[in-house]
Amino acid sequence: MARPVMTLTTDFGQADGYVGTMKGVILGICPEATLVDIAHDLCPQAVRQAAYVLHTAAPYFPPGTVHLVVVDPGVGSRRRPIVVQTARALYVAPDNGVLSLALARDPPHLAIHLAETAQASATFHGRDIFAPAAAHLACGVDPRDLGEPLPVSGLITLPGLCPELQPDGSWRGTILHVDRFGNLITNIQHPRAGDQISVLAGGERIVGLKRTFSDVAVGELVAYVGSSGYLEIAVREGSAAARLGMAVGDPVCVEGLP
Amino acid sequence: MARPVMTLTTDFGQADGYVGTMKGVILGICPEATLVDIAHDLCPQAVRQAAYVLHTAAPYFPPGTVHLVVVDPGVGSRRRPIVVQTARALYVAPDNGVLSLALARDPPHLAIHLAETAQASATFHGRDIFAPAAAHLACGVDPRDLGEPLPVSGLITLPGLCPELQPDGSWRGTILHVDRFGNLITNIQHPRAGDQISVLAGGERIVGLKRTFSDVAVGELVAYVGSSGYLEIAVREGSAAARLGMAVGDPVCVEGLP
Amino acid sequence: MARPVMTLTTDFGQADGYVGTMKGVILGICPEATLVDIAHDLCPQAVRQAAYVLHTAAPYFPPGTVHLVVVDPGVGSRRRPIVVQTARALYVAPDNGVLSLALARDPPHLAIHLAETAQASATFHGRDIFAPAAAHLACGVDPRDLGEPLPVSGLITLPGLCPELQPDGSWRGTILHVDRFGNLITNIQHPRAGDQISVLAGGERIVGLKRTFSDVAVGELVAYVGSSGYLEIAVREGSAAARLGMAVGDPVCVEGLP
Repeated sequence: MARPVMTLTTDFGQADGYVGTMKGVILGICPEATLVDIAHDLCPQAVRQAAYVLHTAAPYFPPGTVHLVVVDPGVGSRRRPIVVQTARALYVAPDNGVLSLALARDPPHLAIHLAETAQASATFHGRDIFAPAAAHLACGVDPRDLGEPLPVSGLITLPGLCPELQPDGSWRGTILHVDRFGNLITNIQHPRAGDQISVLAGGERIVGLKRTFSDVAVGELVAYVGSSGYLEIAVREGSAAARLGMAVGDPVCVEGLP
Repeated sequence: MARPVMTLTTDFGQADGYVGTMKGVILGICPEATLVDIAHDLCPQAVRQAAYVLHTAAPYFPPGTVHLVVVDPGVGSRRRPIVVQTARALYVAPDNGVLSLALARDPPHLAIHLAETAQASATFHGRDIFAPAAAHLACGVDPRDLGEPLPVSGLITLPGLCPELQPDGSWRGTILHVDRFGNLITNIQHPRAGDQISVLAGGERIVGLKRTFSDVAVGELVAYVGSSGYLEIAVREGSAAARLGMAVGDPVCVEGLP
Repeated sequence: MARPVMTLTTDFGQADGYVGTMKGVILGICPEATLVDIAHDLCPQAVRQAAYVLHTAAPYFPPGTVHLVVVDPGVGSRRRPIVVQTARALYVAPDNGVLSLALARDPPHLAIHLAETAQASATFHGRDIFAPAAAHLACGVDPRDLGEPLPVSGLITLPGLCPELQPDGSWRGTILHVDRFGNLITNIQHPRAGDQISVLAGGERIVGLKRTFSDVAVGELVAYVGSSGYLEIAVREGSAAARLGMAVGDPVCVEGLP
């Protein structure tokens, strides 16, 4: 039998040992798990950024992968720890919207409210609740054995994930994510029809969609459809975020979409 | 047989290939090892911070785990490379106090002075001495085959790890660690009796112990017992380190402890 | 049979999920692979730095390891994706010189121009071309089945990797890499004969080669042969890069070499 694969996505960084502690718990329960880090250097408590990163990576993992996500500003409050099962994967996360984008592509058919154990700490549910649940799932435990079912329609969804059509026919979207290279990833999916499009962002107008960075000169702004299907804005061998002074949540306008 | 688990804790960062090089050495000797990073982004040469991070993570790993720790400002000098065996685990590290906190919880019954090989470099003992020793241990080699026994009472211990009772009945401790969220972890363990306690830190007084961050409003200071059993100070959805201008080693005072 | 080992070296950082996505692709094709990160926090698009880090780590991995390297400022342009086979290892990378130093130590006997698939994105060849190729190699696929052979003599080599002898008998080299501790690694290999040597760097003169940092006082400059065989400059428990104001590409001069 293939070894079970589990991914980890957190805002815990790499300097405090929190991720290593969770992996110790997981390997104690499910020693044969293959553990893969998706990201841990997310901005602290950036649920929206985590939702973006998770949904771009998750589809590339083998069927049956368990995705453990701990970006959890509400730890210790009443937000629910959940397990969500889809046709492709299992997700373990706080019910705070961090799964919104992943579940929009990979719809849930089962949601479980994880039972909390009496001895859980109040501040590190990653170690005490989420990691053990994910490890049991990786070893084949049925999600229904880990808590009570919830209606999947009641899961929390982040607002403002979709662009809006304006009266003048343009679309108004936002920046979903800024990657390490300073590329700006918008929430506008699969735009087509290259030359007629104008992208307005940070006070500049970018005319036409290109195929990739190297279709413009070094240092120039370029708009293109990124590897996850979203409209992106970059500077070839530079940072669009720095050039345009833009960050997550800032508005982008696209004219000329059919 | 379960695959052996080994953890790695260093101040090598992630940009220089030093950790990857050690893993290559380990997999060449013990291909079946499961390698888990505890932390590599520790402040360079921060033995005290490494000691803290290691001792919070180590207890959550399966029995028999090998913990490899290379935070080693004295590389190439006379400090001793050691193996320490406890009831739960094996530790491989320089004898510079980095194991102090872990061994206080998990007492050693055997210490070995690792034999140094003639061909070891003078500056990268992680690759040439510590990683091979850890790999041999993971594959079942007896620690006594790797060097000469040392008295466990002679291992170096970091000073100043315990809080001190003051003449007025208060306790004076210090900040052991500042985590990624700016939470301040003190060296005061398991305080009880919530409401009577006052914590004085960075010129502010925090009255009462709470259960978790979400017991105060966003932006407020909160004192609580953290997930490793120490008194911690946080700002909900903010940074206590920034708010109080505090760092590792700074003093904290607690009044009203029974 | 031993599990295949694969290393990953990129400039993707740890916050965007790009590395995790590649690992998902790899585990879908070759579930038994052991994946080891060499470095992902390289400066964006720093081909020279990646070449250095790769060649210091690669020799320490078991024979047959697959080294996947994605530092690729030319993604989407005409630069060739390649596989290179040596007596010790397989490399998968863009043909942009990033393998120069590794192949100087471990000469290639076969190079393959990877066939590009029609459905590859224009901006994430790490996920769509390099990771699948590396995974197939790890599972035992013959490199010749992945594309057309290339003459190994035609692979791109980075310029300026070797120091130059000056008319006055001194050697002029450059800084190849600055590591996390601020140590300056030069491109001058295996200098001998300690006391007669002078190193001129950043306006200072360092007389004599030492064995290691601890041969000088805390805060002092020291020149020594580093763990990879190159002349390095450090400040004991400090940063030579900060002290001398030096960075990658800056000149270093050595007098008194035989």
